[in-house]
Amino acid sequence: MPYARLLQYTFSMRVLGIDCGTEYTGFGVVELHHDGSLACVECGAIKLSSKEAIPKRLARIFDRLNAAIVACQPDEVAIEDVFYALNVKSALKLGQVRGVAMLAASAAGLEVAEYSPLSIKCAVVGYGRAEKQQVQHMVKRLLNLAEIPEPPDVADALAIAICHLHTSATLAAQRGMRA
Amino acid sequence: MPYARLLQYTFSMRVLGIDCGTEYTGFGVVELHHDGSLACVECGAIKLSSKEAIPKRLARIFDRLNAAIVACQPDEVAIEDVFYALNVKSALKLGQVRGVAMLAASAAGLEVAEYSPLSIKCAVVGYGRAEKQQVQHMVKRLLNLAEIPEPPDVADALAIAICHLHTSATLAAQRGMRA
Repeated sequence: MPYARLLQYTFSMRVLGIDCGTEYTGFGVVELHHDGSLACVECGAIKLSSKEAIPKRLARIFDRLNAAIVACQPDEVAIEDVFYALNVKSALKLGQVRGVAMLAASAAGLEVAEYSPLSIKCAVVGYGRAEKQQVQHMVKRLLNLAEIPEPPDVADALAIAICHLHTSATLAAQRGMRA
Repeated sequence: MPYARLLQYTFSMRVLGIDCGTEYTGFGVVELHHDGSLACVECGAIKLSSKEAIPKRLARIFDRLNAAIVACQPDEVAIEDVFYALNVKSALKLGQVRGVAMLAASAAGLEVAEYSPLSIKCAVVGYGRAEKQQVQHMVKRLLNLAEIPEPPDVADALAIAICHLHTSATLAAQRGMRA
């Protein structure tokens, strides 16, 4: 991690990454320490039952994300910027989940950053076309986890948080170098 | 209104109709009285500025809908069931607004009913392929309003509420006849 040296004793931040999905919504809070090391503060997945009415599912996502925000006190929130989607109907469903996730951030006064899948893979694996397994493996390694986070939505959420921390740290370093 | 006679002194209900949109989100609370007459309790439109960050826009929709729910105490909420959408990107944006609208209902413990554009037009105009202007005109007439509600999103929201009241009243009457 080359940015680690640049940022020594200059930067510390906590980010909540959210991987929105209609079946599982993953979330993960990652902290970047002054020495450039990363740590997972909390992570999990909200499983949605297709038997439950959609407004109730959305309320469950909102409540769980709120609880994570209250417990972990992140500085910012990051989500994946999805352009692609299988079809219009799935985009509409995914949008509903995204709306609620963004609202949870906004209600807590937190800014929301969005990253493309390409940026997220680049930040974590160093390669935009990386496979899902490579992302999971690098998340485990970067966060020094005992196991690969399951379901994969949790690893994706942590990857989004790491991507935002890398970007923010790089921007902070650039500001520092300019100053 | 043939259902009026059926329902005399048997049914009274208040419904919040929401017309979700990425530019304007219309809302309207309509009450069905015991004598079968309809009245507009409150209505309005939430205008969203494209200069504002999306999470803030969503928070504004959520807060305004919450305020209407607290002020008008509707029994249920109704929204338009959109299948169609211009494209995947617009479906995703519309989904975000819908998610927040459904959450506002769910957070207040209210059920959400969904109706297709066809059902809404049928309920208000009696003809599924009715023009937008016909819907606006009938909403004005049914609710005894001095003017056509503007922007059109307000009329659409009131039409959605009227559609749900008609449907609920008919179901209640059927139950009554069966009992």
